[in-house]
Amino acid sequence: MSAKSTSRDIRTANRYEVLRQIIARSPTSRQELAATTGLSLATVATLVGELLDLGMLTEVGFEDSAGGRPRGLIAVNPSGGALIGVDIAETYVRVELFDLALGMLARAGEELEPGGKRPEQVAAHVAAAVGTVVSRAGVGSDRVLGVGVSVPGQVDRARGICVYAANWDWHDVPLLGLLARHIVHPLYLDNPLRACTIAELWFGAARGRGDTVVVNLGTGVGAGLALGGGLHRGVSNSAGEWGHTTLVLDGRPCHCGNRGCVETYVGAPGIMTNLRELSPHSPLLHPEDQTATIEALAHGVTAGDPVALEVLRTTARYLGAGIADLVNLLNPEVVVLSSWVAAALGAPLLNEVRAAVGRHALSRPFAVTEIVLSPVQTDPVCLGAATFALEGALGSPRRGHVKTVGRPATPRSRTAQSS
Amino acid sequence: MSAKSTSRDIRTANRYEVLRQIIARSPTSRQELAATTGLSLATVATLVGELLDLGMLTEVGFEDSAGGRPRGLIAVNPSGGALIGVDIAETYVRVELFDLALGMLARAGEELEPGGKRPEQVAAHVAAAVGTVVSRAGVGSDRVLGVGVSVPGQVDRARGICVYAANWDWHDVPLLGLLARHIVHPLYLDNPLRACTIAELWFGAARGRGDTVVVNLGTGVGAGLALGGGLHRGVSNSAGEWGHTTLVLDGRPCHCGNRGCVETYVGAPGIMTNLRELSPHSPLLHPEDQTATIEALAHGVTAGDPVALEVLRTTARYLGAGIADLVNLLNPEVVVLSSWVAAALGAPLLNEVRAAVGRHALSRPFAVTEIVLSPVQTDPVCLGAATFALEGALGSPRRGHVKTVGRPATPRSRTAQSS
Ligand SMILES: [Zn+2]
Ligand SMILES: [Zn+2]
Repeated sequence: MSAKSTSRDIRTANRYEVLRQIIARSPTSRQELAATTGLSLATVATLVGELLDLGMLTEVGFEDSAGGRPRGLIAVNPSGGALIGVDIAETYVRVELFDLALGMLARAGEELEPGGKRPEQVAAHVAAAVGTVVSRAGVGSDRVLGVGVSVPGQVDRARGICVYAANWDWHDVPLLGLLARHIVHPLYLDNPLRACTIAELWFGAARGRGDTVVVNLGTGVGAGLALGGGLHRGVSNSAGEWGHTTLVLDGRPCHCGNRGCVETYVGAPGIMTNLRELSPHSPLLHPEDQTATIEALAHGVTAGDPVALEVLRTTARYLGAGIADLVNLLNPEVVVLSSWVAAALGAPLLNEVRAAVGRHALSRPFAVTEIVLSPVQTDPVCLGAATFALEGALGSPRRGHVKTVGRPATPRSRTAQSS
Repeated sequence: MSAKSTSRDIRTANRYEVLRQIIARSPTSRQELAATTGLSLATVATLVGELLDLGMLTEVGFEDSAGGRPRGLIAVNPSGGALIGVDIAETYVRVELFDLALGMLARAGEELEPGGKRPEQVAAHVAAAVGTVVSRAGVGSDRVLGVGVSVPGQVDRARGICVYAANWDWHDVPLLGLLARHIVHPLYLDNPLRACTIAELWFGAARGRGDTVVVNLGTGVGAGLALGGGLHRGVSNSAGEWGHTTLVLDGRPCHCGNRGCVETYVGAPGIMTNLRELSPHSPLLHPEDQTATIEALAHGVTAGDPVALEVLRTTARYLGAGIADLVNLLNPEVVVLSSWVAAALGAPLLNEVRAAVGRHALSRPFAVTEIVLSPVQTDPVCLGAATFALEGALGSPRRGHVKTVGRPATPRSRTAQSS
C-alpha cells in the first residue's frame, strides 16, 4: 500500500466517521462530534460544512452549553438523497430504498425462476425492482445518490464484474455494465459478506468499536473483517473466505474441492448433515429445505427437544473451534454472529458458541472479545449494499450526479473512493 | 478505533514510509521519494526537513535532472544515532547495536543458566550485554536513540510488562521497570513474533508490498500480520497467535490445553513427532535436541533420504493447509516463511508448501499471493527489536533524549507512537 492511498483513505475515513456519528446521535453538535470522534473541532467543522453544502445534513436549532454560547445542532437531512440496496440471491432479487438516515422507504422483490438466471435476465429483474422502489417511495430519480448491488460470489469492484458465482456458474459477467443499460444512477458492486460487514460497521455491532469479525452463517459461511475502522478487503478483494478454512483435516468433502471446511459443519447444509448423522430419520429434517430444517431445529431447541439440543451443541462446538482461531489470530474486540442461520438459532446458539470459544481460544484474547448476535434488524445485505452507495457518494461528494441517457459504454461504478 | 488515533497514525506512518524508502534507496531525492511513496512533494519535503533537523539524514550532493535544476540528494546519516535490539530467548540473551541505516556495528551475547532465570537476573544480563555493545561499537551513550527488547510470550507494551512467559513461568513481570534501573535509554518492549514481522516490514519481504503474513516457524509457531502498511496488533496486542489454530479437530494434544493445534504439527517439536510417527528409530531423530533434528532433516532432504523427504512432505502438507486458511481469510499479497526452522529447511520446504497451499486454497486469492522465504539475513528478532526503537524515535522525534540518573519510578517505555 502506498502512503498516498493511505492519506486519501484517512480523509475519506474521517468523512465516514463523522457522518456515522451524526446518524447515530442525530441531532448533535460539532463539539459533541469532536469529543466522540477525537478529531479537532476545526476538522469536524470543515467536514460538517461539506456535508451541509451537499444537502446531506441540516441545521436544526441550538442547545445551551453551560456558560458558553449556544451550540448549533445538526442532523441528517433524510430527504437529502436516497440510497438503494440490491440483494441478488439464488432464488430472488430484493431491492430496498433508504433515506439518508438509512431509514427504509420502500421495498420490492422479484422471484428468479429456475430457467431465468442468465445475467441479462437478472439485470432486467433488478432494474424493474429499482424502478418500482423509486416510484413507490415517490422520490425523484435525480435524488438517488447511488445503487449498491450485492451478488454472491467473487466480485471485481473496480471493473463492476462478477468474476465467479457458483450458484449460476457465472464467469466474468460484466454485471454493472448490464445494469447500466437500465439504471442511470451510480452503481457499486460487491458481495453479501462485505455488505453485511459494512452494515455492522455503520449501523450494527461494530459501530464505534475496535476490530470486528462478522461471522456470516447462512448457506455459505464467511468472516467479514472490519479492521482499523474499515473493511479489510485484501489484495484482490477476496478476504473473508473463512468458510473454506480447514477445520477437520480430511473431513467432510466440500464443493470447493477441499475437505473438512468450516462451512461443511456450520453452514445450513452442514447443520443438516450434523442432524442427519445424529438422527437420520428425525422429523426435524426437511431433506430438500434448509430453511425449514433450521427453523424446525430452532423450535426444537426452544421446546427442549433432545435431538435439536444435541445438534445445536455439535454445531456450536465446530463453530466455537473455528471462531476461537479467529480470536487467537486477529485479537478482535467484537465477534458478531450474523445472517439467517444465526438469527434463527439466536440466543441458544450464541450461548453454546460463547462456551465453545472459551474452551478453544487462548485466555488473553478471549477475555477481551465480546461475542454478540447482530443487532441489525432489517435485511443486512440490502442495508449494506445501500451503505456502499453512501460511501461512494461520500468518496466523491457532489450534489446529485450527471444524468446519462442511452447506454453508457462503461459501467459507472465508483470504487476507488471506498477501497 | 477513534478517528483521532487514525489521524495520528497516518502522520507517523508517513514518517515511517519516507525513512523506510530512504534506507532502501539511499541516496535518493525528494522527487524520487514523492514518486515512490505517492506523497506530495511538499509533504515529503516537510518530513525530510524534520529528519534532517534530527540528524537522521544528511545531504550528500546533487544529481542532474533532465532539463531541470539539479536535485538535492539525501541519505541516511548512519552516525545520526544508534539503535539497540535485544533478543531474550529461553537459553540466551543476544544484543545487537545498529547504526541508523540498521547496519550492525556490534553484538554481544549472554548465556542464561538454568538456575538464573529470575527477572532480576535476566535484566542484569541484558544490561551487561547492552553496556558491552555500546562500548564495543565506540558509540557515545548519548547517541543511543533507544533499546528495543523482545521477550517471548504475552507483552503489555504500554506498561512495559511481560504478562506471561511460559518458558520461565513469568506472570506480570515489570521487565522494563527492572531494565530501567540499569539502562538510561528509552526502552520498548514487544515479543519475537512482532519483532520478526516489523523486520520484514522495514527490511524484508513486506517492504513496499501490500498486506503480508509472516509465518514464524520455530519451536512455537505464529503468524505476524502486516496489514495496511503497519503491524496488526489486535485489541490487546495479542494478534498473530496462529500456532494454536485448530488444524485437526481432536488431534495431537497441545500445551495450550487444546488439541490439534497447527503448532503441534509444524513447530520444531511437531516436526519431530512427524518423524517419530513415520520412523520411530530413525537416525535423523535426536530426541532431546530440536535443532540437531531439524538440521539432520535438512541434510537428509538435500541428500535425498526418503524418510527426510517424507517428513518434509508431511510437514508441508499440514503447513500448507494452515497457510491456505490464512490466504483465504486475509487475501494477502505476500506470505513469508521465517525463523530458524524455515531457514534450515529452506527452498525444499518452500516448494512443498507452495504446492500444498495451492491444493488447499481457493484459486483466486492463491493466484495473487506470493509465498517466499524471509530475505532478512541477520537475526530478525534483534533487527526487529531495534526497529521498534527506531519507530519509537520517529514517533516522538527529538534530538537525543533527557538522561535520567538513578532509578526512575516508571519505565520510560514509549508505545503510543507506534501503536
Ligand atoms: Zn470448502
Ligand atoms: Zn495449542
